[in-house]
Amino acid sequence: MALKLYVDLMSQPSRAIYLFLKLTKIPFDLKLVKLREGEHFGEEFGKINPFRKVPAIDDNGFVLTESVAILRYLARERKVPDHWYPSDLKKQAKVDEYLEWQHLNTRLFCAMFFRSKFLEPMMFNRPVEEKKVARFQGEMEKCLAQIENIWLENGKKKFIVGEEISVADLLAVCELEQPGSKHTYSCLKQ
Amino acid sequence: MALKLYVDLMSQPSRAIYLFLKLTKIPFDLKLVKLREGEHFGEEFGKINPFRKVPAIDDNGFVLTESVAILRYLARERKVPDHWYPSDLKKQAKVDEYLEWQHLNTRLFCAMFFRSKFLEPMMFNRPVEEKKVARFQGEMEKCLAQIENIWLENGKKKFIVGEEISVADLLAVCELEQPGSKHTYSCLKQ
Repeated sequence: MALKLYVDLMSQPSRAIYLFLKLTKIPFDLKLVKLREGEHFGEEFGKINPFRKVPAIDDNGFVLTESVAILRYLARERKVPDHWYPSDLKKQAKVDEYLEWQHLNTRLFCAMFFRSKFLEPMMFNRPVEEKKVARFQGEMEKCLAQIENIWLENGKKKFIVGEEISVADLLAVCELEQPGSKHTYSCLKQ
Repeated sequence: MALKLYVDLMSQPSRAIYLFLKLTKIPFDLKLVKLREGEHFGEEFGKINPFRKVPAIDDNGFVLTESVAILRYLARERKVPDHWYPSDLKKQAKVDEYLEWQHLNTRLFCAMFFRSKFLEPMMFNRPVEEKKVARFQGEMEKCLAQIENIWLENGKKKFIVGEEISVADLLAVCELEQPGSKHTYSCLKQ
């Protein structure tokens, strides 16, 4: 039975897993959970994830949530090329270092900027709270500078960790594109 | 050369790693980084962690930051009893699920409640911002209910994941004790 992937492609971590499965040619059944229609609050999805969040997977009865846990599980369970999530303990720990750092940095601040500037005013039909947006923009910009100066060593490196692409890059790029993506805005307006 | 552990025991993730090393009897040199004295902004610590955060380790020249990445690395590198971080892929993924979930839940909200209610008023000698505290308290209480009702299945389970103690429990308990700990307050007042 193919892996079931529960996502909404508007969600940054959902896209990271979708990209990973496409790039590694792991077969899967796409199960779209339309967040804007509240499908994540439905009875069916509640059985998959009681926290009501995408992404989630069902791998032949084994249900798992949390994008980082899912990427790690799939990289090992499906034996994908090593560069995605190195088996060497120290190299793997350095990928883990970014996977853990990003939650309270790239993930939190890019998403909160996007949410306060675009998503909430559109969803609730209310004016933009400029002070709130400015605060998240400041945090996001600090975080972007750290990606550039620390993770990418002032642009000397091409990838977040090591010399090859890894799951860290997929998670990073999906968060970084969200606040500036024309595609995201056109989806929002549909 | 013994493992070097850079921590301030006022920091919740620092305590989780300290407890893990004590419980698993992994020898280490304790390197205290006094956050209240700004030692994390010093030149020496900047070489260990350019993000200026504790905990961090130096394992014979291999430097690693981010508490979850450190716990995972040490559990595998030092071959501790399996229950701490199971080698079975599916069991490990379920521990990972909590380790990833906690960043934007237990970690974020217990810490922000503690910070807004106690730390900031004390550090900056200013009145408590009641509205801010109430917002973080609400988020923290929602998160505590999820620990109780979802992770611990309405109190039926003794541990966050599975039937035995794991690194997930250490991280959880260190976050949960912070907002209500008399010890924490007495340290703060010193």
